[in-house]
Amino acid sequence: MNAAVAQQTQPALDELARLFADRFTTSTGVRDHHSKDESWHHPHRPDAVVFPNTTEEVSLIVQVCAKYRVPVVAYGTGTSLEGNCVPEHGGVVVDLERMNQVLRVSTDDLDATVQARVTRKQLNEYIKDTGLFFPVDPGADASIGGMAATRASGTNAVRYGTMRENVLALTVVLADGRIIRTSRRARKSAAGYDLTRLFVGSEGTLGIITEVTVRLYGVPEVMGAAVCSFDTLEGAVNTVIQTIQLGIPIARIELLDEVQMGAVNNYSKLDYPVKNTLFLEFHGTEAGVKEQAEMVQSIANENTGGTFQWTTKEEERRRLWQARHDVTWASKSLRPGCSIWATDVCVPISRLAECILESKKDLQESFLIAPLVGHVGDGNFHLGFLINRDDPKEIAEAERLNERLVMRALAMDGTCTGEHGIGLGKMKFLTAEHGDAVAVMRQIKIALDPLNIMNPGKIFSV
Amino acid sequence: MNAAVAQQTQPALDELARLFADRFTTSTGVRDHHSKDESWHHPHRPDAVVFPNTTEEVSLIVQVCAKYRVPVVAYGTGTSLEGNCVPEHGGVVVDLERMNQVLRVSTDDLDATVQARVTRKQLNEYIKDTGLFFPVDPGADASIGGMAATRASGTNAVRYGTMRENVLALTVVLADGRIIRTSRRARKSAAGYDLTRLFVGSEGTLGIITEVTVRLYGVPEVMGAAVCSFDTLEGAVNTVIQTIQLGIPIARIELLDEVQMGAVNNYSKLDYPVKNTLFLEFHGTEAGVKEQAEMVQSIANENTGGTFQWTTKEEERRRLWQARHDVTWASKSLRPGCSIWATDVCVPISRLAECILESKKDLQESFLIAPLVGHVGDGNFHLGFLINRDDPKEIAEAERLNERLVMRALAMDGTCTGEHGIGLGKMKFLTAEHGDAVAVMRQIKIALDPLNIMNPGKIFSV
Repeated sequence: MNAAVAQQTQPALDELARLFADRFTTSTGVRDHHSKDESWHHPHRPDAVVFPNTTEEVSLIVQVCAKYRVPVVAYGTGTSLEGNCVPEHGGVVVDLERMNQVLRVSTDDLDATVQARVTRKQLNEYIKDTGLFFPVDPGADASIGGMAATRASGTNAVRYGTMRENVLALTVVLADGRIIRTSRRARKSAAGYDLTRLFVGSEGTLGIITEVTVRLYGVPEVMGAAVCSFDTLEGAVNTVIQTIQLGIPIARIELLDEVQMGAVNNYSKLDYPVKNTLFLEFHGTEAGVKEQAEMVQSIANENTGGTFQWTTKEEERRRLWQARHDVTWASKSLRPGCSIWATDVCVPISRLAECILESKKDLQESFLIAPLVGHVGDGNFHLGFLINRDDPKEIAEAERLNERLVMRALAMDGTCTGEHGIGLGKMKFLTAEHGDAVAVMRQIKIALDPLNIMNPGKIFSV
Repeated sequence: MNAAVAQQTQPALDELARLFADRFTTSTGVRDHHSKDESWHHPHRPDAVVFPNTTEEVSLIVQVCAKYRVPVVAYGTGTSLEGNCVPEHGGVVVDLERMNQVLRVSTDDLDATVQARVTRKQLNEYIKDTGLFFPVDPGADASIGGMAATRASGTNAVRYGTMRENVLALTVVLADGRIIRTSRRARKSAAGYDLTRLFVGSEGTLGIITEVTVRLYGVPEVMGAAVCSFDTLEGAVNTVIQTIQLGIPIARIELLDEVQMGAVNNYSKLDYPVKNTLFLEFHGTEAGVKEQAEMVQSIANENTGGTFQWTTKEEERRRLWQARHDVTWASKSLRPGCSIWATDVCVPISRLAECILESKKDLQESFLIAPLVGHVGDGNFHLGFLINRDDPKEIAEAERLNERLVMRALAMDGTCTGEHGIGLGKMKFLTAEHGDAVAVMRQIKIALDPLNIMNPGKIFSV
């Protein structure tokens, strides 16, 4: 297979224009909107954008693209962070905007089926009177289809798992237009290959996800929030490690370093100590939450931690966590107009302090600034390089630092990406991470997308 | 590809005999031992059995088998329940007996890497002084490699998940002898296709698992056990549903029906009421376990349940649960010399009572006896048909009842197998369950095992 797709773009566009009428466009404005994601990666325009209403219409689009060997890239909310949805080789973007219906909710089975473009906040709003919620929270109000495609996670994966654990079944349009459902709704199954998990994280390179069945959870009786500053980074990280090791079922445990805390104070007009700080959340019964919090407070005390700012009242919880939610804007305010290049390594938790400390030493010797925020219960953290993406010197420096960080994480048996996916930005690290296993991924890609039309040029070149 | 493998068996055996000397055998006794599993499926002898010491030796065996197109079937403890390891097309069995070393344990990262033939009890014995344990418990003391291959689960999957959730990484020998590691040790990763989950549950048809990295958990501070009888089956099942819906983190919740309880009383000399009975286990802190148990007791009371027999003392816990652990032998004692044909459907929990009741109605109209035991927190239950497997009439009746049960479960959006795998016994249901998705599984099989030598004739015919 050639790396470049043999394209006959115009006849494909003509055919799609006939089929989709005003739901097909080649307007520059719309193509621009679909040329990028939220990352520092440079945009690339598609040749056209189509807005299907149904899985069957997605299948029709893919069939036309297959006939003329034109790349086809799915688009949800465009909030990916490694160029995952950038149509690098042009072609047709399938914007799933109209596929935004919640199809069913079962309060008895604690699951729901949604069209791919339903966002996580939309689903949670839809089910807010059922006493259930969908936990996976990557920060952005991403589409659930996109979250499945990138194997997203976020702040409460430490308790509720990532999209890997929370997707029960998918409807997928394959590269030749066939439509499959990957699984049924039983909580577990040993029936054949785990196609659900194969498509979760495949970033649109094997097919387009059009429907997702997800797990839901009962809203906890009580939610407690805490903020705790530490004199040392090791103290903060060791608190996390010991909390996990004791099996305390903490719902969220997030680390912000002193750079990030300074930015947050400044942006959100707060007066937290400018120290390494943990933001924590506890879910359970009243007694359970109290017990968990007391245990973690006691661990923190032994690890240079101060006294918890603590609440179980919803409004105060929101206020306490506001600082955490504002990190992106707070970081950007340190350098107005900058792009954020977010690193994303994840390491075994025993190596987390070492990995962070060595990376901060690299930063001290660099001219770049990068606040740190981490989903530290999972061993995952992000440094956000604040760069001018049009300055080759800054790009080169971010690349150098990121490469050192990734290689450090791999040497610790970690991964180059905990939750953002490979997209464009991590392709060069895939073989360093997976070795000969990449050849197996490629065999699967070739078997399922022999024309290489599904989001080509992502994850690996074929 | 032909369904039958083109074989040149003798030259392959000659070459393996030279390479493995006394670790290669064609003796009838050894071949007999490797001709079967613990199910009712009829045995089939392999042509030879080899005992490798290392992953590299497994690779060598597979290379020889590939050269001569001879089937190769991995063997752990032979405790599978759907003929999964029966060498249906002969060939070479790779008995991993010598690959029984625990390679590393990390108490900091709560994980361990073992060779495939380490059993779950062996691992737990090995780590017993670390304060950690490996939770997945399918009943049999199966090898961890075999448990990964069949996506096993068991009694405490309701809290700790199945092998799908608890395998972090695998070392796999592919069909051409290549050796890959599917993942690193980070708790989560978004780096490329999820090969770990692809091989978990692939039943040796895509490669041979030689090493497994698994998650470990802290031994709970307190474990509480309870037994509770119910006047009605609906009452017992509704207790389970409400417990799950309330998010009570129950560790085990097992249903034994009145037929099973009668068998257990008789076999284990106990005097439980001959009623539908739940066996429960609670893990947590002292306060947490007490709180959980009180909540479930209160739910049970509203659902025709009696007062808990209850203990947190280890010895009494073992005594209370003995009845549950004895179900296989208790069932067999109802009909000495019989085989047990264990059904294995799993349905969304809202349909569980209906599924069980309809199936028991079928049984009332049949001449077969089948005690019921269920991992009901997952929606998974087993009817154990007590059959003479040499009597075609009994086989036909079990087949008829099982087919009705499977079709009922599929109509409820459930699966034909919650944890035993497809093996030989469920092949005919795979398309009914997965439809066109089976074609995708087959494409993957053909891409990764083009000669169809890896455990051929399992899951689907190629």
